[in-house]
Amino acid sequence: MSDPRPIGIFDSGMGGLTVMRALRDRLPNENFIYLGDTARLPYGTKSGDTVTRYAVQAARALIARDIKMLVVACNTAASVALPILQTALEPLPVIGVIAPGAAAAVAAAKEGPIAVIATEGTVKGGAYVRAIQALSPRMPVVQQAAPLLVPLAEEGLVRGEIARLAVERYLKPLLATLPRPRALVLGCTHFPALKEMIASVAGPDVTLVDSAQTTALSVARMLAEQGLLNDAPGGSALFLATDAPDRFANVGEIFLGSPIDPGSVEVVDL
Amino acid sequence: MSDPRPIGIFDSGMGGLTVMRALRDRLPNENFIYLGDTARLPYGTKSGDTVTRYAVQAARALIARDIKMLVVACNTAASVALPILQTALEPLPVIGVIAPGAAAAVAAAKEGPIAVIATEGTVKGGAYVRAIQALSPRMPVVQQAAPLLVPLAEEGLVRGEIARLAVERYLKPLLATLPRPRALVLGCTHFPALKEMIASVAGPDVTLVDSAQTTALSVARMLAEQGLLNDAPGGSALFLATDAPDRFANVGEIFLGSPIDPGSVEVVDL
Repeated sequence: MSDPRPIGIFDSGMGGLTVMRALRDRLPNENFIYLGDTARLPYGTKSGDTVTRYAVQAARALIARDIKMLVVACNTAASVALPILQTALEPLPVIGVIAPGAAAAVAAAKEGPIAVIATEGTVKGGAYVRAIQALSPRMPVVQQAAPLLVPLAEEGLVRGEIARLAVERYLKPLLATLPRPRALVLGCTHFPALKEMIASVAGPDVTLVDSAQTTALSVARMLAEQGLLNDAPGGSALFLATDAPDRFANVGEIFLGSPIDPGSVEVVDL
Repeated sequence: MSDPRPIGIFDSGMGGLTVMRALRDRLPNENFIYLGDTARLPYGTKSGDTVTRYAVQAARALIARDIKMLVVACNTAASVALPILQTALEPLPVIGVIAPGAAAAVAAAKEGPIAVIATEGTVKGGAYVRAIQALSPRMPVVQQAAPLLVPLAEEGLVRGEIARLAVERYLKPLLATLPRPRALVLGCTHFPALKEMIASVAGPDVTLVDSAQTTALSVARMLAEQGLLNDAPGGSALFLATDAPDRFANVGEIFLGSPIDPGSVEVVDL
């Protein structure tokens, strides 16, 4: 049994390409359709209701292209809209980045505490705290919204003094927690672009948890369990964006780690 | 003759409140309705077509509330959508922030050059260059997109090392122009929040042009010419936002310079 239908990946913009990169590395035969809602990004400062509405529209556009699974690569969307999407789209398998990230953090942190940096929306929604404490009820969790890291990553300003000062600003209060956090969740798909700087500020005793890797593992497991893997040669990628395909291609390369031809980015209206 | 109908002000978010502040100072009897498209901000990284579509929707929502004039306080929207709005909404007077800012820059710069910092969208569209050279055809103009300044202003990070380094990053190439620029246009409504830092980096020889002040002057003139001023006691303010009224109120205070009651912010759908 082999299922060549594509895996749909949805994000507010280009950050979710870090998740696509991890998926492609782990599942090289799979075909992918990536949708970035660039006309309405970022989601991180918007209300749960608005983000949910946008996420449902994006999911519909991907379902119209016959996907076999939906990956919600945007932490903010996953943190507020995942249960609604899972219910509304049944029986389509829908997976977010929060639960895999939480599981990896619990595994890495031992007795903890676990620190989380994310967007304003993800921190307010508290989805990481709930997901972590569902696995480890007494695990202490500290959170910090880190809004400036999103534009820094998008501008490619991931080294140098501005990036260092911004990372220090957000990490210092978390690292002052006693006992000192053992794991730090990069709770926004933009943050892996700043991973080196974050690691250098956090120091060697703190394990960084990048949910892209653990989400790819969960997707691979779920596809295998449900008999949905593609065994035939595949590996195609289609990019959809709701606005500005040139910017999608330019900024997207930072996150995907390989070139994107602007001509291959299709503009869609949700 | 006295016209108590409100002046409509439209912006992608909260930055346009710097324009409302200047308007209120100059025209204390006028009533205002301010609409911030917080569900879709920022506009600065989006395409001209998308920004135009959003601007037309916002203008319609304000016209439905019987405004006597529309002020497009968002530089990005004014730079790409003003002619279309003026044509589509005739005979409603529509004024943007670009032409008043350009006029003030030409007056301040003498033989120039004039430097402009703005969003990516405003710089790409070239509206400031056209508006300046319409007044002074040989005036040299240098531009620089300064995307990080928007989130810095929104986070209230307008002092300190991060703000200084970001401002230096964008201003240094402009200040290296020979001859040195005489005037610097703050071509985004967020930038006046960083005015002190920008002035300190630019030095005393460069005149900063904040289009909020000059736009308020143009609005006052146009209202007087068309017999639309309100002579009766007024001064009311109504705030509309497409999302997240709490964040609108909190961040908005930075730009308006006075408190906003979150309960007074009405959420509208465009």
